[in-house]
Amino acid sequence: MPIVTIQQFPRDTEQKRELAARVTQAFVDAYGSSPESVQIFFQETEKHDWAKGGKLGDDKQAT
Amino acid sequence: MPIVTIQQFPRDTEQKRELAARVTQAFVDAYGSSPESVQIFFQETEKHDWAKGGKLGDDKQAT
Amino acid sequence: MPIVTIQQFPRDTEQKRELAARVTQAFVDAYGSSPESVQIFFQETEKHDWAKGGKLGDDKQAT
Amino acid sequence: MPIVTIQQFPRDTEQKRELAARVTQAFVDAYGSSPESVQIFFQETEKHDWAKGGKLGDDKQAT
Amino acid sequence: MPIVTIQQFPRDTEQKRELAARVTQAFVDAYGSSPESVQIFFQETEKHDWAKGGKLGDDKQAT
Amino acid sequence: MPIVTIQQFPRDTEQKRELAARVTQAFVDAYGSSPESVQIFFQETEKHDWAKGGKLGDDKQAT
Repeated sequence: MPIVTIQQFPRDTEQKRELAARVTQAFVDAYGSSPESVQIFFQETEKHDWAKGGKLGDDKQAT
Repeated sequence: MPIVTIQQFPRDTEQKRELAARVTQAFVDAYGSSPESVQIFFQETEKHDWAKGGKLGDDKQAT
Repeated sequence: MPIVTIQQFPRDTEQKRELAARVTQAFVDAYGSSPESVQIFFQETEKHDWAKGGKLGDDKQAT
Repeated sequence: MPIVTIQQFPRDTEQKRELAARVTQAFVDAYGSSPESVQIFFQETEKHDWAKGGKLGDDKQAT
Repeated sequence: MPIVTIQQFPRDTEQKRELAARVTQAFVDAYGSSPESVQIFFQETEKHDWAKGGKLGDDKQAT
Repeated sequence: MPIVTIQQFPRDTEQKRELAARVTQAFVDAYGSSPESVQIFFQETEKHDWAKGGKLGDDKQAT
């Protein structure tokens, strides 16, 4: 522990690399966690598999 | 909030479009939520990545 | 399937009763699902266990 | 219920078939659950979508 | 990894102790996982926070 | 989006306040996300509802 699951739109590897380092450091600074105890899962979601305001992401973009 | 995560078999976009509208309306009617506060994530699972009764979905179909 | 997990602030039982009926009906209408196949989990989150814009829910309310 | 969600690295179907049978049997033996009440979701994660110790899985392997 | 999240009704500690041992052994036998790599989270849900067939668990019991 | 769900042992509010600020800033720095788009859910787990290496957290501590 802790286990961090992030639901997000797709991002390139470099951005995920940087986010993973920064989020892990946040746990070290705020909780005193050991870095190796922090696991991060990126659950990437395409816009057609996400909705807000009753509309699919694809449809929100088209309007 | 609220965040709605739906684990389901794959569906076509039109069905997800309709479900997103109806589920969002359910929150408006039952909770008085604003539509824009409701986010929905479709987590589509293939039958070989799901099991029930100790059998993978694919194997259940084959019997 | 489908399994619906809802992360939300606490609501009273009557509101959850109504939401459960409406969300299940949404699956029946949009997907043709059988009502008994639809399971819904309410994961209620207190404001001190949720954050947006870098602030805990409690702190957002206080400002 | 129960709903079991497994976040894991990709595995072949034969391994998932065996794990599904064993995990379901664990619920039967420990809880007395009926096998048909146990649903299992395999959420397979690639190494570039997982991080530990502040490093992406791919980068951990490269070092 | 693997991370196992179990959504279930409340169970006593002895049952969870036994399930944890058996589920972990299932990963050892089926995947060759090391026991220490397997983490299990029990997410216990009360019947009023779960619904099936459009009805809350409490209401299903009352009928 | 993004939605961040953190499975962790209980922490006091001050630590969660600091972690929320730092994790949100990580998204701003690494992804250029707007702070208001980042939601964080703390799912706190007691040691008797978590297992590693086939043992419940409480039992691991006792040995």
